[in-house]
Amino acid sequence: MSSPDAVLAKFREYVLGPLRFMNLLSCFELGIVDVLKGNAGGGMTAVQIADATGIAPHSVEQMLYLLVKEDFVSFDESSASYALDGIKHLSDDDLGRVLPWMDMVKVVCLRQLYYLTESVRTGKVVGLKELYDFEGNFYEASTRYPELQASWGAMMDQVTGFIDPWFFGNLDLPDNAKVLDVAGNTGLGAVLAYRHKRVENLHVTCFDFPEKEAEALENFRAHGVQDHCSFIGGDVFDSVPKGFDVVMIKHFLDMFDKENVFRILKGVHEALDVGGQVYVLVPIYPEDVKSSCSVDFFPAYFLGCTMAQGGPQKISTYEQWMEACGFKVTKAVSQDISAMPPDVIPVHGIICGTKTSP
Amino acid sequence: MSSPDAVLAKFREYVLGPLRFMNLLSCFELGIVDVLKGNAGGGMTAVQIADATGIAPHSVEQMLYLLVKEDFVSFDESSASYALDGIKHLSDDDLGRVLPWMDMVKVVCLRQLYYLTESVRTGKVVGLKELYDFEGNFYEASTRYPELQASWGAMMDQVTGFIDPWFFGNLDLPDNAKVLDVAGNTGLGAVLAYRHKRVENLHVTCFDFPEKEAEALENFRAHGVQDHCSFIGGDVFDSVPKGFDVVMIKHFLDMFDKENVFRILKGVHEALDVGGQVYVLVPIYPEDVKSSCSVDFFPAYFLGCTMAQGGPQKISTYEQWMEACGFKVTKAVSQDISAMPPDVIPVHGIICGTKTSP
Repeated sequence: MSSPDAVLAKFREYVLGPLRFMNLLSCFELGIVDVLKGNAGGGMTAVQIADATGIAPHSVEQMLYLLVKEDFVSFDESSASYALDGIKHLSDDDLGRVLPWMDMVKVVCLRQLYYLTESVRTGKVVGLKELYDFEGNFYEASTRYPELQASWGAMMDQVTGFIDPWFFGNLDLPDNAKVLDVAGNTGLGAVLAYRHKRVENLHVTCFDFPEKEAEALENFRAHGVQDHCSFIGGDVFDSVPKGFDVVMIKHFLDMFDKENVFRILKGVHEALDVGGQVYVLVPIYPEDVKSSCSVDFFPAYFLGCTMAQGGPQKISTYEQWMEACGFKVTKAVSQDISAMPPDVIPVHGIICGTKTSP
Repeated sequence: MSSPDAVLAKFREYVLGPLRFMNLLSCFELGIVDVLKGNAGGGMTAVQIADATGIAPHSVEQMLYLLVKEDFVSFDESSASYALDGIKHLSDDDLGRVLPWMDMVKVVCLRQLYYLTESVRTGKVVGLKELYDFEGNFYEASTRYPELQASWGAMMDQVTGFIDPWFFGNLDLPDNAKVLDVAGNTGLGAVLAYRHKRVENLHVTCFDFPEKEAEALENFRAHGVQDHCSFIGGDVFDSVPKGFDVVMIKHFLDMFDKENVFRILKGVHEALDVGGQVYVLVPIYPEDVKSSCSVDFFPAYFLGCTMAQGGPQKISTYEQWMEACGFKVTKAVSQDISAMPPDVIPVHGIICGTKTSP
């Protein structure tokens, strides 16, 4: 990028990013979009929108300038009335993907990002301390603050609903397999793994902190899989349970720096017998970062808002790390970006390895 | 915009905006850019940058992915080293414009925007209440919180340094003119007006809240213009001082809704004698909002971060409003966007009117 003007124009886009984001989201939150959607027959003036939403007409006009600029909403000069334009082409499914992401960026990121620099310097999520007086990472905080859990959970449900079928479609399990789901939280991954695989005599064990056990067992009963799923309490950084044929590590390695990823992978390697397999599901950066939108998201998200460490790697890096931790990589696949809706930010990879020697 | 894919891709850009913004700014705040600048001879590895900045090498890599994607920084695979790329083409003047804007968006906007919806609904700047336990607008808060004043002031100095020479170049004053600077703050606009105009026997009076008087008088003395500049304390919404030939209203009308703009303009009209003139300097939206970057900024800025009301208008709207308040518009000019650096967000207009009848 050799022209100063091109760099300066990019910087302007960066400066505008937070304001654009919240202006758009706020038009949904204020009910402006719903009001326009409910009035599909014709346009509405600022005063009519104001009456329907309870906000000032002047504010309606100001909030809609950007949406008119972007052709999300149209404005007819002669009648001074607004109508949905681009937004009306989004299906309920589309909005069901996009709005949870916007809400998550607002709730989990917007204020916390203010402290990004300090979080990187200290290795602590300073935003959680400043805003919630909470010491620890976001995932710990989310168990205490329902607003954080609700917003992050809605986004994550949308991501896993999209990704997990692809993951399980890539999971090859033999009959009688004993599967361990590392950092399996409250057992839903174990349930899905059991449900998805049509093999004989499969058993899936969720491994996570002991305080997750009650909810996991309840989930197993609720899904009627209590004879095929179980729970082991522990900490992956202390030791990994032995006696399993396949270990799944889903949505987890990206939370950690290289050093901790190595501790996890080496712990899993030690726990497996020769011939045992590990399946890693993780968001990845593309080999050419210039084609990525995930490098725009994850560094600031992990370092500033959730862990003060971590962040995805390229799939080639994860392959190297798996080999360095003793595994022979047998499969490494990325999601097909061209088949993903254009709003989707994370791209996931599956890296599968086998323990070939003690 | 008829394609759902185009709308969804735009939404993705919006979602990424806050994270991109803070990732870039943080690379400046962490000293990564300075370290690379100081090492102009060659590239630096993540470990070398980490050593020089005191942050973890893993975090350096994560923070620089985005800058490499954008060609702000280059990455050489073979030596695994980073060097400035696009950023090295920015002059000190460029960075002196851009960085105060970035800091202002961080300090004044990033956290406060979280409360945009509630601010629009209530007509109060909820972010100031939540974050600072302050009731009132940003300009009032900035007098109490030095961090707000410092960040906003640095941005505003940069804006006025760019705009005011253009404004004063458009200001036609007769000899012996008595000029009133409405909302003149601590008198620097009065000093500039006096300094800039080479007419005989000019007198400029700063009009603002009484608590600004001491600092204004001190400014007049410091600039040696105490015989030509004076101060009147008051509130423009109560009454405007009489006896002036020209009233300047600079950087002020954009802070208010239409109703309050009318109160100000009518108050000025009432105070002037027939033949008296008003000069309004204000950020404007272009007649075609699609060519604007200021609609991306000001609505969320004024409604969410500073006033919970206000926002610029098109220059044609300001002309209509001046006429509706009794003025004959004699001049309306906009800044030439093509002559502005590409990072500049506000575009200003000057609207000049004359009182033609009592």
